Amino acid sequence: MNEPQSRFLRACHRLPVDATPVWFMRQAGRYMPEYREIRQNLSLLEIMERPDVAAEVTLQPVHALGVDAAILFADILLPIVPMGLDLKFIPGTGPQIDPPVRSEADITALRAVDVASDLGHVMETIRILRNELPDDVPLIGFAGAPFTVVSYMVEGSPSRDYRHTKGLMYSAPDLWQELMGKVAEVLGDYLLAQIQAGAQAVQLFDSWVGALSPADYARFVLPYSQRVLEAAASSGVPVIHFGTMTASLLELMRLAGGTVIGLDWRVPLDVGWSALGGEIAVQGNLDPVALLAPRPELERRVKEVLDGAGGHPGHIFNLGHGILQQTPVENVRSVVEMVHEWTTANGS
Amino acid sequence: MNEPQSRFLRACHRLPVDATPVWFMRQAGRYMPEYREIRQNLSLLEIMERPDVAAEVTLQPVHALGVDAAILFADILLPIVPMGLDLKFIPGTGPQIDPPVRSEADITALRAVDVASDLGHVMETIRILRNELPDDVPLIGFAGAPFTVVSYMVEGSPSRDYRHTKGLMYSAPDLWQELMGKVAEVLGDYLLAQIQAGAQAVQLFDSWVGALSPADYARFVLPYSQRVLEAAASSGVPVIHFGTMTASLLELMRLAGGTVIGLDWRVPLDVGWSALGGEIAVQGNLDPVALLAPRPELERRVKEVLDGAGGHPGHIFNLGHGILQQTPVENVRSVVEMVHEWTTANGS
Repeated sequence: MNEPQSRFLRACHRLPVDATPVWFMRQAGRYMPEYREIRQNLSLLEIMERPDVAAEVTLQPVHALGVDAAILFADILLPIVPMGLDLKFIPGTGPQIDPPVRSEADITALRAVDVASDLGHVMETIRILRNELPDDVPLIGFAGAPFTVVSYMVEGSPSRDYRHTKGLMYSAPDLWQELMGKVAEVLGDYLLAQIQAGAQAVQLFDSWVGALSPADYARFVLPYSQRVLEAAASSGVPVIHFGTMTASLLELMRLAGGTVIGLDWRVPLDVGWSALGGEIAVQGNLDPVALLAPRPELERRVKEVLDGAGGHPGHIFNLGHGILQQTPVENVRSVVEMVHEWTTANGS
Repeated sequence: MNEPQSRFLRACHRLPVDATPVWFMRQAGRYMPEYREIRQNLSLLEIMERPDVAAEVTLQPVHALGVDAAILFADILLPIVPMGLDLKFIPGTGPQIDPPVRSEADITALRAVDVASDLGHVMETIRILRNELPDDVPLIGFAGAPFTVVSYMVEGSPSRDYRHTKGLMYSAPDLWQELMGKVAEVLGDYLLAQIQAGAQAVQLFDSWVGALSPADYARFVLPYSQRVLEAAASSGVPVIHFGTMTASLLELMRLAGGTVIGLDWRVPLDVGWSALGGEIAVQGNLDPVALLAPRPELERRVKEVLDGAGGHPGHIFNLGHGILQQTPVENVRSVVEMVHEWTTANGS
């Protein structure tokens, strides 16, 4: 493989860069007027099922913000639809899966997925995007991690305590493993298919993994995340492994795999990077609420993240979670400029 | 002061005990049939405002479970009512404060509180309880920590992102400090009044503090928690300082104060205790969902917590957060028995 030329891919491989690359989780979405315009006529699922529209939405922040990577516009729960589940997005509540997956019969009934055809609209979106994106803006594909996807499937709606999910783990570990195994297989295939369609990197989102103790993560989750991460890594593209509330899980997440580990703001970047052993790239970790702060405070916080990175190769600037819909676009654009300007000045 | 005789108070002071003391956050509540019976005729606020009923509810788990401490039945938001706010408990949603506190005018309008009279029903509940509780079951009073209470006041309802709270912090640090100062003063007075009325220990609940980065905690929260903890500690009774998602905050929480630090299940007990330096008592840290697990799994998890404590003096067994309402009472009682039996056998 030739040495990659884009900032983002170089940083994933911890190669020197001309400036720290920046992208934002949920960089396409409701905070952007051009996105809201499209949403007036189409539901979330309709946008994601129409490759031309999903591609257009993916490109919006690339044009508006000057970010160093595009991320496919999709939802982590898309792969559960061909598994036979009924997914709806309820305004104000979030995703709803009704009925949820709780019994042996529910798990047995899950259908095998042929990702290339069942999720063909996603692959088509990726092909369109690879044609339209400039060479220096790589496309990131993604999937939810098995724990996060399974917890949605089992809870049926957002949860504070993950009572049903942990209940299944603790009461029926064999069923848990069967379910995680099925989901991990689909997610691994899904990432590989995205890479084959043209994604130049992928991110595994384990957004809710911070609900678990390290012992439970090691026993009930790590082997399945590892399976998905290894499937994706076999392609040779960089794989970002992200979670929130992971301060106690970082070593285990590193063991599970990933070229890059995504941190949230609850761990100072330097502390998190050390906990990971340093010999890996990191992504993060501005608090998304900082994007709502006045300019001087926002600058202070961006500097704090960059200081934590200390100019070491292998830092990708991002938030610690997705952009909030109340975020002013102007602030997001300013952060891209700050990061580029301040890290170019340092020389690297 | 004489050496305390009860297991719970001895453990707070890291004195040897005949068995590890156990109590549970939210040990009185909806999972108990005798509580549900009372709730058929009275709202949550009505129970808390009637000292005879609040005392009865506080005693229910002492009788049913054999726990080593009682905790006052109250809500962390009670002190905001005399501050002039309209507090309601909405079934299925949780507390609602309408209108919330967001502007300078809102903060200026907060009323000074005379805790002894304005929250006289709480003090009366404590006096009743001290008459009725056996000598070996101390009464724990409590308050919410300034950050957690203020975040409810500012958000108005439970939040995932604490956007308004952090927005106030970041945009108007002077107002933030004024608000935290006012609330900290009330909470310090409130704990002292509870101690004067007879509480033999108090716990400061910083349930939502894990939403913050260590830098934000140090700058915007620590000084106010410290003020409340110092006020309570001046009385000489043990003070428990508890939060969730605190893996990155433990050192700072210790600096803020407390005789005992309460841990959640996201940090292994031994790791958390080491991070705290070891020279302090710890409380925790079973995942509340474990109480819904089948007996062998529950036993395994209780053992894991006790192994983490390693028989060192200064461990109080508890959950990492409150009991869930779906919890079988029988399981809770079994945990009390397990902890007592297994730690007595070890000798201590």
